[in-house]
Amino acid sequence: MAHQKHQSCIDACYACAQACDHCAVSCLQEQDVKMMARCIALDIDCAAACRLAAGYMSRGSEGIKQACAFCAQICRLCAEECAKHKMDHCQACSDACRRCAEECERMAA
Amino acid sequence: MAHQKHQSCIDACYACAQACDHCAVSCLQEQDVKMMARCIALDIDCAAACRLAAGYMSRGSEGIKQACAFCAQICRLCAEECAKHKMDHCQACSDACRRCAEECERMAA
Amino acid sequence: MAHQKHQSCIDACYACAQACDHCAVSCLQEQDVKMMARCIALDIDCAAACRLAAGYMSRGSEGIKQACAFCAQICRLCAEECAKHKMDHCQACSDACRRCAEECERMAA
Amino acid sequence: MAHQKHQSCIDACYACAQACDHCAVSCLQEQDVKMMARCIALDIDCAAACRLAAGYMSRGSEGIKQACAFCAQICRLCAEECAKHKMDHCQACSDACRRCAEECERMAA
Repeated sequence: MAHQKHQSCIDACYACAQACDHCAVSCLQEQDVKMMARCIALDIDCAAACRLAAGYMSRGSEGIKQACAFCAQICRLCAEECAKHKMDHCQACSDACRRCAEECERMAA
Repeated sequence: MAHQKHQSCIDACYACAQACDHCAVSCLQEQDVKMMARCIALDIDCAAACRLAAGYMSRGSEGIKQACAFCAQICRLCAEECAKHKMDHCQACSDACRRCAEECERMAA
Repeated sequence: MAHQKHQSCIDACYACAQACDHCAVSCLQEQDVKMMARCIALDIDCAAACRLAAGYMSRGSEGIKQACAFCAQICRLCAEECAKHKMDHCQACSDACRRCAEECERMAA
Repeated sequence: MAHQKHQSCIDACYACAQACDHCAVSCLQEQDVKMMARCIALDIDCAAACRLAAGYMSRGSEGIKQACAFCAQICRLCAEECAKHKMDHCQACSDACRRCAEECERMAA
């Protein structure tokens, strides 16, 4: 199947989207939400980028390299912000973003 | 984590989105594309519905039941259409749609 | 064109998505973000529902009624929550959600 | 509002998404669908890119430049392919893609 060579990157994208979605709403329930504002905003952006890139790879699209290069950039931003916060959901999200960035960078190369 | 009770349904949604995306572009490469027109159109719709429902579940959204009820309806339509065609990508897509519909129906109940 | 009969509803959906996206990030910059948590969560959900429904209508999809019925439900939830808050972005978002709900309910009927 | 400086680009993105969605399903109803396969595939990709970029701009996201640069690339691919076909939906889609590419390139600069 056209998408099998992309499988580990697709998996990383959907895992990252899920971690970002979960992190965003978990941040909204933290005591100091204000401190989490940038994290929430980047989570929303990153989840959208990951779902888009996964779709491109699943369709074997011409624009895979562009989509993955874009996704990797947003993942890097989100990974750095999440890494600043100690909560489990932020640490897990940071890890997922970093893995996804690495996979997407490989795809975009 | 808020999304863990939804995990098997989230997984089914993303697997279904991937199967639909792959089926759509594979149908476009078939000899008789015209015969696949409804399949392609439903694949596009179904992939979008699955990604949306997965996002709702990952965020523990209030509208999970509504999103999953909607997604299940589109999955049923797509599963039935794909089942009519013998190609591997259609059969695999039909299976993925049926599994996703079942998971979503459980979630919407 | 297949989508012209849906034009006012498509426009309402994209206007609502934009109002929700804007409201979400504006809420994140408010003094008391905690009070806005439900508003932000519903904004994210509603923007996604509106973009999905607009896509279905633009494609003249079979599932238009289902997509619009779903979208209307989420718009109603978001409109009610936003109406509770005095900020301009919440009031504007509440109005956009209500208009979109009405258009989508007409489409789903 | 944070998104007002982006308004003409947001409008161009949603207009392009709608034109692409409409073009994709119209191509599926053409006599010679096979000839339209690349057009359909790029339409799907382009609609997704446009909706993503519009969301980023509506949220005043950090990644606006990256999202718009990515969107512009896909719009250019889709505009070129659509321009090859004489059907009204392809010509209209090509125009919408070109306008959107120009707006996005300005935003990404």
